Amino acid sequence: MSAQIIDGKAIAEKVREEVRQGVANMQAEHNYVPGLATVLVGEDPASATYVRSKQRTCEQLGIRSIGHHMPADSTQEEVETLVRQLNADPNVNGILVQLPLPKHLDEEAILNSIDLEKDVDGFHPVNIGRLAMKGRNPLFIPCTPAGCMRLLSETGVELNGANAVVLGRSNIVGLPMAMLLQKANATVTICHSRTKDLPGMLRQADVVIAAVGRTEMVTGDMLKPGAAVIDVGINQKEDATRKRGYRLVGDVDFESAKEVAGAITPVPGGVGPMTIAMLMENTLRAAEISLAKK
Amino acid sequence: MSAQIIDGKAIAEKVREEVRQGVANMQAEHNYVPGLATVLVGEDPASATYVRSKQRTCEQLGIRSIGHHMPADSTQEEVETLVRQLNADPNVNGILVQLPLPKHLDEEAILNSIDLEKDVDGFHPVNIGRLAMKGRNPLFIPCTPAGCMRLLSETGVELNGANAVVLGRSNIVGLPMAMLLQKANATVTICHSRTKDLPGMLRQADVVIAAVGRTEMVTGDMLKPGAAVIDVGINQKEDATRKRGYRLVGDVDFESAKEVAGAITPVPGGVGPMTIAMLMENTLRAAEISLAKK
Repeated sequence: MSAQIIDGKAIAEKVREEVRQGVANMQAEHNYVPGLATVLVGEDPASATYVRSKQRTCEQLGIRSIGHHMPADSTQEEVETLVRQLNADPNVNGILVQLPLPKHLDEEAILNSIDLEKDVDGFHPVNIGRLAMKGRNPLFIPCTPAGCMRLLSETGVELNGANAVVLGRSNIVGLPMAMLLQKANATVTICHSRTKDLPGMLRQADVVIAAVGRTEMVTGDMLKPGAAVIDVGINQKEDATRKRGYRLVGDVDFESAKEVAGAITPVPGGVGPMTIAMLMENTLRAAEISLAKK
Repeated sequence: MSAQIIDGKAIAEKVREEVRQGVANMQAEHNYVPGLATVLVGEDPASATYVRSKQRTCEQLGIRSIGHHMPADSTQEEVETLVRQLNADPNVNGILVQLPLPKHLDEEAILNSIDLEKDVDGFHPVNIGRLAMKGRNPLFIPCTPAGCMRLLSETGVELNGANAVVLGRSNIVGLPMAMLLQKANATVTICHSRTKDLPGMLRQADVVIAAVGRTEMVTGDMLKPGAAVIDVGINQKEDATRKRGYRLVGDVDFESAKEVAGAITPVPGGVGPMTIAMLMENTLRAAEISLAKK
């Protein structure tokens, strides 16, 4: 039996279409256009590519995009001053500080300085604290975990009472993912490099989230038949048949896993397209919050 | 084989003695006495008892205790005004708002109004957010989970790579406990009422934290031989031989569990005494933070 392939491209397009509609309605009803400010510090090419991609998606959906690019040697005070200006700017609904920041900057302090109601990345400690706590809801859910949850719901995966294994415990994927699954009443196990019997843990899981950044480490024999597998990893694997010498693969060995899983995301085309789509959803939400206060 | 009984009374006394010494040193070296303000709203008898017990322990350790008792119909603004006054008071190092608050009050907003550096209960969303995140450390760890961690370390339980099951996901015990164990490199599974095969999960656990409030629900046959079992539950069980008609028991069936576990806390006399001891430790720490800024 071969698994259902979860089409992240199609689901992301569905999310984007919802946002496009929401933006159009907001403009028609309130004469208001949501705005996303991006803050890029330094010249990291991958970060620059991500930021451009976010800006382009804004344009496609009718969201105003305001790009700020600061030199790599910007001081803490300079970055925080810009964030405070953006906090005060009524045309900016969301503020995205592209991570990672240059090492001399205090990332936590900068994220902390973002107005909670403009924290569309969902990384403000108060948002994470609310995400972790019962009965409290963050204003914004971090984009990649939010995207994974949407992929699961669109695929009809039952989370209530399901055993879920989250592989990896990063601040941007693993930890918030574990909290979201727990809030959805799954029984969540957080696995990582110190976990003793990872295959044994995985074989009990109805839902697997692989977000550890290790090439194809989860193989089909480690999966429970019928499991839903969300592969967040994006790794380069040598491939002489490709012009650039590698291809992109996930943390899951797709070929063997798809023979055991019930549903699985491909890499690329699974989780990847969801992240920016969820950022757009968060930006629209930020604009709605702002309008509701007027 | 019978388990090692983890003596919470003795370990709590050890913590208190450390705090007593720390307070005495602070007074000798800096002529400064740590102060803990308690805020009790309403007439709940259990809350009043807890607050009195905290105040009494302060006195025993040389910590100044400042008790505030507000009527049950106090407004949100009145409680927040008091908290702001305590935030500004240089003689107050820790602020403890006794939970639960009367239902008409917004608990989160009140906890949020406590100065982060005086949040000795560790329930400020920023503290919880930091607790949840890798590479970030809260100023204060919530007292009961901190007490459980201390019991484990005093017992010499290895957490690195251990399988840990946290039973229960409350904001004050289960969730922070899961984060602490995860930060200590355990592989943590959070179980709750929706968990399908709880005995199966428990049988894999090297460390069990039971914090679900269900009388003796974890029995010896559900445990892995040699497991360390920390019982946070305090439940009343009918007992005609007692004058009050009941006795206190935990979430773990102590009699059967102690035959399988490697180490186990009794109820009472296990986790119970630790909570206030850790509150005292947090208060001393708050005073140290305050002194360091002078």
